[in-house]
Amino acid sequence: MTVTDTTEFARDKFFEKLQAARSASRTLATATTAQKNSALEHIAAQLERDTQTIIAANAEDLERGRASGMSEYMLDRLLLTEDRIRALAAAVRDVVALPDPVGTVVRGSTLANGLDITQVRVPFGVIGAIYEARPNVTVDIAALALKSGNCAVLRGGSAAASSNQVLVASMQQALRASGLPSECAISIDEFGRAGAEQLMKARGFVDVLIPRGGAELIQNVVTSSTVPVIETGAGVVHVFVDASADSIMARDIVINAKTHRPSVCNAAETLLVHKDVADEVFTAVFDALASNTVEVRADDALRARIPNLGKVEQSDWSTEYHSLILSAKIVDSVEEAIEHIAEYSTHHTETIVTNDFANAEKFLSEVDSAVVMVNASTRFTDGGEFGFGAEVGISTQKLHARGPMGLPELTSTKWIVRGTGQVRT
Amino acid sequence: MTVTDTTEFARDKFFEKLQAARSASRTLATATTAQKNSALEHIAAQLERDTQTIIAANAEDLERGRASGMSEYMLDRLLLTEDRIRALAAAVRDVVALPDPVGTVVRGSTLANGLDITQVRVPFGVIGAIYEARPNVTVDIAALALKSGNCAVLRGGSAAASSNQVLVASMQQALRASGLPSECAISIDEFGRAGAEQLMKARGFVDVLIPRGGAELIQNVVTSSTVPVIETGAGVVHVFVDASADSIMARDIVINAKTHRPSVCNAAETLLVHKDVADEVFTAVFDALASNTVEVRADDALRARIPNLGKVEQSDWSTEYHSLILSAKIVDSVEEAIEHIAEYSTHHTETIVTNDFANAEKFLSEVDSAVVMVNASTRFTDGGEFGFGAEVGISTQKLHARGPMGLPELTSTKWIVRGTGQVRT
Repeated sequence: MTVTDTTEFARDKFFEKLQAARSASRTLATATTAQKNSALEHIAAQLERDTQTIIAANAEDLERGRASGMSEYMLDRLLLTEDRIRALAAAVRDVVALPDPVGTVVRGSTLANGLDITQVRVPFGVIGAIYEARPNVTVDIAALALKSGNCAVLRGGSAAASSNQVLVASMQQALRASGLPSECAISIDEFGRAGAEQLMKARGFVDVLIPRGGAELIQNVVTSSTVPVIETGAGVVHVFVDASADSIMARDIVINAKTHRPSVCNAAETLLVHKDVADEVFTAVFDALASNTVEVRADDALRARIPNLGKVEQSDWSTEYHSLILSAKIVDSVEEAIEHIAEYSTHHTETIVTNDFANAEKFLSEVDSAVVMVNASTRFTDGGEFGFGAEVGISTQKLHARGPMGLPELTSTKWIVRGTGQVRT
Repeated sequence: MTVTDTTEFARDKFFEKLQAARSASRTLATATTAQKNSALEHIAAQLERDTQTIIAANAEDLERGRASGMSEYMLDRLLLTEDRIRALAAAVRDVVALPDPVGTVVRGSTLANGLDITQVRVPFGVIGAIYEARPNVTVDIAALALKSGNCAVLRGGSAAASSNQVLVASMQQALRASGLPSECAISIDEFGRAGAEQLMKARGFVDVLIPRGGAELIQNVVTSSTVPVIETGAGVVHVFVDASADSIMARDIVINAKTHRPSVCNAAETLLVHKDVADEVFTAVFDALASNTVEVRADDALRARIPNLGKVEQSDWSTEYHSLILSAKIVDSVEEAIEHIAEYSTHHTETIVTNDFANAEKFLSEVDSAVVMVNASTRFTDGGEFGFGAEVGISTQKLHARGPMGLPELTSTKWIVRGTGQVRT
C-alpha cells in the first residue's frame, strides 16, 4: 500500500464511505448489548488469528519510518509485536465487561397532563477519530465506539497506514462474522490529509470528532472543524503546597505527580509553594526532587533559598514538559496560587496540599479545572482510577464532558414521550 | 447611536471588553444564589424604572427599521411597549424562582483507596449569544446566564442596537447596585459584524456560543465558530399517522401540531399517513386541515385520493414553512415513515399516532431525533412544558444537550477530589 498526502482526493468515494458508515450506524444504534459484545469477541479473536499479517504490515510502516528518519521513541509507539497484539485483543475483551450505556434512563417524569417523558442515552451515531501513528488507537477507539453503539471513522497517522489498513480489515471481517455491518469501523487513511480535512467539515456524516495526539494535532482539529469536537489532552498541571502542608504528604504528592509517569497529561508541570511553609516541608520536597533527578526551574524567591536551582523563564509557566522538569515558584497566599493557575493552567487538573479547611474549600471552589483536588496526586485524573473501566480520554473542554470520559460520554440522549392523545392548549 | 457594519474594528477595545467579562465571570462563578437572585430583582426593577428611556431608544430602532423598509412582522418583533417591558421584567423575576443549578452534585463515590470524588455543576464562565433584532432576547439570555453563574456577551442584531444599548446599560446599573460586576452582561453591538465574527473565534474568552434566530444565522455561527456552539432551532417536524390510529386522536394531534403556533420550531411541517389507515381517520384529518385553512402539498398517491390538494415538490420535504402549509404523503409502512424521517428530518421532534405497540416502540427506538413521541402533539417539545421552568432553547445537536434546555444545560461540571495524601502506585 502506498499512501502519500499528494493523493488526488477522491471526493465521491470518500463521501460514499462516510455514507456507508452513516447507514451502518442506524443498524448499530439498535443492536443489543449481546450483539455488540459478540462482535467485540469476534474482533479480539480475529486480531489474534491475524497476528502474522498485522506484524508484516507493521513492518512496512516501520521500514518507511526508519527510512524517513523517525525517532526511536516514535518507532516504538508504531511497533506491534505478538505480545502487543495479544494485549490489544485483551483490551477489546475488557470492553465486553463494561456496562452498555445505551438505553440507560437519565431522568424522567410524568407531567401534570399525563405525558410520560423519559430521557435515555442513545449513541451519537458516527464518531470520527483523528490521531497519530499509534496503531493500537485504531483498535481501542473502534472497540469503545462499538460498545457505545457508534460507528468509528478512523484517520490514523499516515506513518501507520499499512498497520491500520490490516487492523481495520481484520475488525471488518469480525464484524461481518458477528452479523453487524463491516462499516461499523472504517478507515479513511487512503484519502490522505485531504480526507482528514474533509472529515472535519463533514457535518451530517459525522456527529462528533475526537482528536488524540499532541497539542498541535488537537489545536488543528479544534480550530478547523465544523463538526462538534471533544477536546482532550493538554495538561499544564499544578501542585500547590500550602503553608499548613504536612511534610511527608507534600513530598509524596509532589514526587508522585511529577515522576510517576512524566510523559502523560496528568503529570505535574508546576509547583507552587507557600512562603510560610515549614522549613521541614521545604527541605523534604526539594531534597526528594533532587534525589529523583528532577530539574527544577525556579523563580528568584525560590532561588534565594536554594541557589543551585535553574532559573525559570516566562515560557516555562505554559509548558507541558512531558519529562523530569518542574517549574516552581514561591507564592504569598492561596489567592496568589489561584491567580497563577487561572493564568497558566490548561484547566486539566490541579491539587492543593494543605491542612487548612478554608483554603482547601477556596481552592476547590475557585480553581476552574476539569479536576480539582485536595491532598491527592494529580495522577488520579484517569478514567480507570475513577472507576469508569475505560480510558476514552480526558476532556479539557467544558461542553458535553469534562475530565475523564467513560463510555457514557460517548453517547448523546433523546427524549421519549408517551401520550394518550395529548394536545397543547 | 450610530452602528454600521462598516465601523472599523477596534480590536484592542473588543478584547478588553471580553477580558472584563472573563474576569467578572470568576466573581460570578462563586456568587451565592441569594446574590444572583438579588441581582435579578434589581434588574427587573431597573428595567421598569427605565421604561421610558427604553421606549425612546426603541423608537430610534423602529424609525431606522421603517426607513430601511423592514417588514411589519419584523417591526413587531423589534417593538417594545410598556406592557412588553413589564412582561420582560416579570420574566426576569420568574428566573429568581428557578432552582440554581450551580453546585448540584451530579454523581460521586468513594474509591477503594479512600479518595472521595464528586462531580458538581459549575458555570461555563462566559456565554456568547448571537441573535437577531429581538431586544427581549437581550434580557432573556442575560437573566438565564446570570442565574446559572455565567456572564453574557451579547451580540444582537444591529437593527435593535439602540434598544439593546439601553437595556444593557439598565441591567449593568442594576448589577452594580446589587454588588456584582457590571460586566456580567455586556454588549458587543458597537463592534458591528466584525465583532460577531471575532466572537466566534474568541477561544479562551468565551466558553460556549448560543445562536438564536433563523436557519441562516445558526448555520453561519455553527460553521464559522471555533468556540464550541450549542445549535438550536430548525425543525422540519413530522407527524406519522399509523394504520391503527384513532380518528379523533389523529385529527387532534395533526391539527394541534400544525396550527397551534405555526411559526415555531416544534410545529409540524410534514404529515405521513399509512396507506391502510381507516377511511374515517383519513376523512377526519383532511377535513380538519381544510377547515383550518391549512394548505396541503401532497404526493401523487395522496392526490389520487383527494384530487384538489396541491402537488408537493421535492424541496417541500426539507422546508420549515413557519406558516399554515403542510407537506403530506402516503407511506406503505412504519419502516417507510422512518426512512422518510431519516432522510428529511432536522432531528428536532417527530410523533407517531398509533395503537400498535410494536410500531410505537419501533418508532421510538429507530427515529433519531431530540424528542420522539407516541400519541402526543409535537408542540410539547418545550422547556416550559417539560417542567424546566425556563426556555433556554431547543438543542438540535447531539453534543452536551439535546432537546429542550433548562438552566442545568447552561452549566458544565467539574470533579472535586478529596484525599488524605493518596498517591498512585
